[in-house]
Amino acid sequence: MREFDEATITDAVLERVAGTPDLRARQVSQALVKHLHAFIREIEPTEAEWEWGIRFLTETGQKCSDTRQEFILLSDTLGVSMLVDAINHRLPSGSTETTVFGPFYIAPPEFELGADISGHLQGRPMYVAGRVTDAGGRPVAGAVVDVWHSDDQGFYDLQKFGDDPRPAGRGRFRSGEDGRFHFWTIRPTAYPIPNDGPVGKMLSAQGRHPFRPEHIHFMITAPGQRKLVTHIFAAGDPYLDSDVVFGVKKSLVEDYQAHHDGKAPDGRVMEGDWFSLDREFRLAPLG
Amino acid sequence: MREFDEATITDAVLERVAGTPDLRARQVSQALVKHLHAFIREIEPTEAEWEWGIRFLTETGQKCSDTRQEFILLSDTLGVSMLVDAINHRLPSGSTETTVFGPFYIAPPEFELGADISGHLQGRPMYVAGRVTDAGGRPVAGAVVDVWHSDDQGFYDLQKFGDDPRPAGRGRFRSGEDGRFHFWTIRPTAYPIPNDGPVGKMLSAQGRHPFRPEHIHFMITAPGQRKLVTHIFAAGDPYLDSDVVFGVKKSLVEDYQAHHDGKAPDGRVMEGDWFSLDREFRLAPLG
Repeated sequence: MREFDEATITDAVLERVAGTPDLRARQVSQALVKHLHAFIREIEPTEAEWEWGIRFLTETGQKCSDTRQEFILLSDTLGVSMLVDAINHRLPSGSTETTVFGPFYIAPPEFELGADISGHLQGRPMYVAGRVTDAGGRPVAGAVVDVWHSDDQGFYDLQKFGDDPRPAGRGRFRSGEDGRFHFWTIRPTAYPIPNDGPVGKMLSAQGRHPFRPEHIHFMITAPGQRKLVTHIFAAGDPYLDSDVVFGVKKSLVEDYQAHHDGKAPDGRVMEGDWFSLDREFRLAPLG
Repeated sequence: MREFDEATITDAVLERVAGTPDLRARQVSQALVKHLHAFIREIEPTEAEWEWGIRFLTETGQKCSDTRQEFILLSDTLGVSMLVDAINHRLPSGSTETTVFGPFYIAPPEFELGADISGHLQGRPMYVAGRVTDAGGRPVAGAVVDVWHSDDQGFYDLQKFGDDPRPAGRGRFRSGEDGRFHFWTIRPTAYPIPNDGPVGKMLSAQGRHPFRPEHIHFMITAPGQRKLVTHIFAAGDPYLDSDVVFGVKKSLVEDYQAHHDGKAPDGRVMEGDWFSLDREFRLAPLG
């Protein structure tokens, strides 16, 4: 075939990729061509706009490094990451809902229940407790609970490795016989995603702020259960209705309860402001 | 809004980008979200496949340099460049058709009519003549005719700058009072696009070869006329029906006439094999 015009080019490309030997690669190639061409046909870009798009994608790739993934930010801010998350987690009702994994996870140090994981992070004390259960509400003992969160300026330890390369604000716990775990840390805060790159420019052009509402990340695994990756968001946060990555679900918003002085649930005697959170995580069964 | 599930996430993102202040940026953002989400919904990627996609885009960006544009290759090989070309060149019938600009243009040195532009490129002699006309077939005098092509191994001078940084196989001419131009060069050949990067891997996964059929590039500008960017392809080339960038149009295929010994149209006495091409370029009027 040697005649490709505006009317026939899409079918010509579809015909070409129809020869892809691997079935899945063929499905993805065909869908990509179909939807990409439909996008181009809808917007009818000028040649200058097309060049701008090429430049945007190139700069997005070139912004990526060992500590920065600009294409994940692009996927997050266009709602693609949450859509992929939803497609991959069609869970039975009653299970704790999932949300985005985010770019700030590394395998955390292990701690005994009750330990303080805040390390060198600054902030006001927070007591976090949880209970891991199965679909029937029965406690899951020995679940591996990874947690991670920012400091009270909105930075993860990873983003400050230049200052101090020790992990902080992250830890791994194992739930007890009653399915429960608890630890101390400091209260995090809402923060902007890195916005000094192409994605920041896109958000700015779209009149959008770059903030995520305050949250703590949880990843919970246990034999026979589906892995749960989620956040617990702080009720009252001003960005709950406009999370830049569309990660919020109502069921994942909880009171970060405020206290002054008094005694914490583990008996620790407190002075000044502190916070507490207690939450059930109901896992979905595997398979 | 704080509840984004598989059913509602696309509308949530569309609502968010609906606030884009600039009308055109808003149209493009909305269309991008709509078609990108439709693509994801059709293929339902696993999380591992999504990660593969992020990696592919990242590697494509990181392959780009001053002398390599991998995202243009991706656009070319998915037929997007030709679709954009078609959308931007809805020409009156009778006008010479357009095709992709390609990544190998630089502003060429100027030559007198009849000069030899082959420089240090190796290959068999080729005499190229043309006539620039307007929509009514009247000669266009003083048109600026830029030409560029590969050597007989399929490499452009740019790709061999390590060996010799002088331009070769490219030149600028001005049509005479009769609209005609002519020059000498060497005959190019079919060649693979650069395929040692992510796009090469994609083509390979799709069971596609990376070749473009033999061609010479022309870019012609003249006052009152639309700029013409096109190629003239060599009839008989084995890749005419499978050009990896979908650039071929029937009307752009011409005999590269073969000769042995004899006299060239400009009177030059030839020995051995040589080739000739003579072609009209009919420009579309501006506006």
